[in-house]
Amino acid sequence: MREKRTIRPVIGLDLGGSQIRLAFVTPGGQRTGKILTVPVTDRDLKTILTLLVDSIRLLQSGGPRPSAVGIGIPGFIRMDEARIYRSPNFPDWRNVPIRDLLESKLNFPVRIENDANAAAFGESWVGCGRNVNSLLYLGLGTGVGGGVVLDRRVWHGREGLAGELGHITVDPDGPICGCGNQGCLESYASATAVVRSYIEKAGRTRSNLNAHDVALLARRGNQKACAVFVELGRALGIAIADLLNIFDPERIAIGGGVAAAWPLFHKPMMDEIGRRAIRPVRLGGKIRRGLLKNEAGIIGAAGLAYRSLGVKVF
Amino acid sequence: MREKRTIRPVIGLDLGGSQIRLAFVTPGGQRTGKILTVPVTDRDLKTILTLLVDSIRLLQSGGPRPSAVGIGIPGFIRMDEARIYRSPNFPDWRNVPIRDLLESKLNFPVRIENDANAAAFGESWVGCGRNVNSLLYLGLGTGVGGGVVLDRRVWHGREGLAGELGHITVDPDGPICGCGNQGCLESYASATAVVRSYIEKAGRTRSNLNAHDVALLARRGNQKACAVFVELGRALGIAIADLLNIFDPERIAIGGGVAAAWPLFHKPMMDEIGRRAIRPVRLGGKIRRGLLKNEAGIIGAAGLAYRSLGVKVF
Repeated sequence: MREKRTIRPVIGLDLGGSQIRLAFVTPGGQRTGKILTVPVTDRDLKTILTLLVDSIRLLQSGGPRPSAVGIGIPGFIRMDEARIYRSPNFPDWRNVPIRDLLESKLNFPVRIENDANAAAFGESWVGCGRNVNSLLYLGLGTGVGGGVVLDRRVWHGREGLAGELGHITVDPDGPICGCGNQGCLESYASATAVVRSYIEKAGRTRSNLNAHDVALLARRGNQKACAVFVELGRALGIAIADLLNIFDPERIAIGGGVAAAWPLFHKPMMDEIGRRAIRPVRLGGKIRRGLLKNEAGIIGAAGLAYRSLGVKVF
Repeated sequence: MREKRTIRPVIGLDLGGSQIRLAFVTPGGQRTGKILTVPVTDRDLKTILTLLVDSIRLLQSGGPRPSAVGIGIPGFIRMDEARIYRSPNFPDWRNVPIRDLLESKLNFPVRIENDANAAAFGESWVGCGRNVNSLLYLGLGTGVGGGVVLDRRVWHGREGLAGELGHITVDPDGPICGCGNQGCLESYASATAVVRSYIEKAGRTRSNLNAHDVALLARRGNQKACAVFVELGRALGIAIADLLNIFDPERIAIGGGVAAAWPLFHKPMMDEIGRRAIRPVRLGGKIRRGLLKNEAGIIGAAGLAYRSLGVKVF
């Protein structure tokens, strides 16, 4: 294991469907300097690769040469081969050996990880799961991502596809999900689902509102908007009760943009968990809002890159 | 670590609601000699403790002195304290420090474990999960037990309550389960549920049939009995798809008495999994019937006892 003093800083990078965000992160999990945000306009592989390499070079220009970059990527990643198997955000990408492609253009190691797994690791490292051994993460964004950290390591499963907690079935007869299943948690608890549910309840066919707007309406007392978040809380509660019964984890962290609506869904969520989790499981303080907000993925990806370098991060 | 040649054999014991079953098991996971079966008539703590001690002494009389006993026990076990928190089979037991009580009467170590966890370990050790790293176990008996083996170790969670896979919600509006939740897997896939479901479909108020009889009726073409197992298969499929999405495990093992009806529920189960598991997860050969049948708990409990002694079992 290399000693910390010889380790140059690591870049953490979050590749999203609409933007790339990256920053330097210390071995203690602190971001240093500002987050560089680069819009993604074209989603074909060649453009994104160039954009990633250019963004990383831009961040490091005038700064220290990084010792590695950790990248969180939406989609299914075969960890054994460091390939993107498929990504909802980049539908043309199939079996892309992204790590090897990037390493051939950068003169330092690249560590890739599913974006929600990276965020899970970030929260368990220096977020709301600091000092706990096991943490499950639900990221309520455009979709619902998930990550499983056991004994302070991301559980990847056989092919790296573990942690798809957004696709736990909440109601077997519920709405069709993008994954093909019916009634997934994602169909109730994503930003997309919030908007769709509000449109349905308001009896409209379409709307220019986003999930943030629906939350604002609910905070102002709009009953239909409130009902959206009650249903969201119930769906979360059903899935979280499953996770408590399966893992008896030390912590469950809820992050992603929709988590900002926490006061709107917290009570129905906890009520549903109370009804459904087997009784001996102690709930006190277990279920928390993520602390790192929209930096969880950047920080977590950097932490995983440090660990790949042999740095003991925690 | 002690060397194998110095280790005397271990006893594996399965404590059930109606009988105690125990046998010697080698460090290679083979049972030696017959299984001793002792009926349980009275369920109060003092009687059971005496029965356990007497059964163990009876098995070892004339044989080798065991180096340890591993015991699988139905119910919630606080592993950190080696206490039975609560057991559906022994309702009067609350917070019973069973290991300490037994060790005070036996002159060798006692290793306790939830019975389904023990069976899960057995299947992963020398059963249908031999040579795999991660295995989830569903035991379809009077209730539905579950066990999670990751990196060849039982995952216990914070307080030892993990692995309650029978209480995954399959339908949030389904039947009330003994645990207080609605629509648990157990409400569809236990022997109790098979009988209840058949009685309902046959329009009776009660029946002397057991789950085995219902399976026999189904094999003879009774449509209502067949429908019971189609529903059971679907419920199993929903829960298993969740588990695939959460863990991406190498194997899922289905054991317990109801698993004998495998041909009656296998197709609807696999169809449901195919509809619901996220697509990149490969199914081939992953979902199997347990190999150790009703010996999984005995063998697994013994394996865990060997491991507690420092023997490298696998």
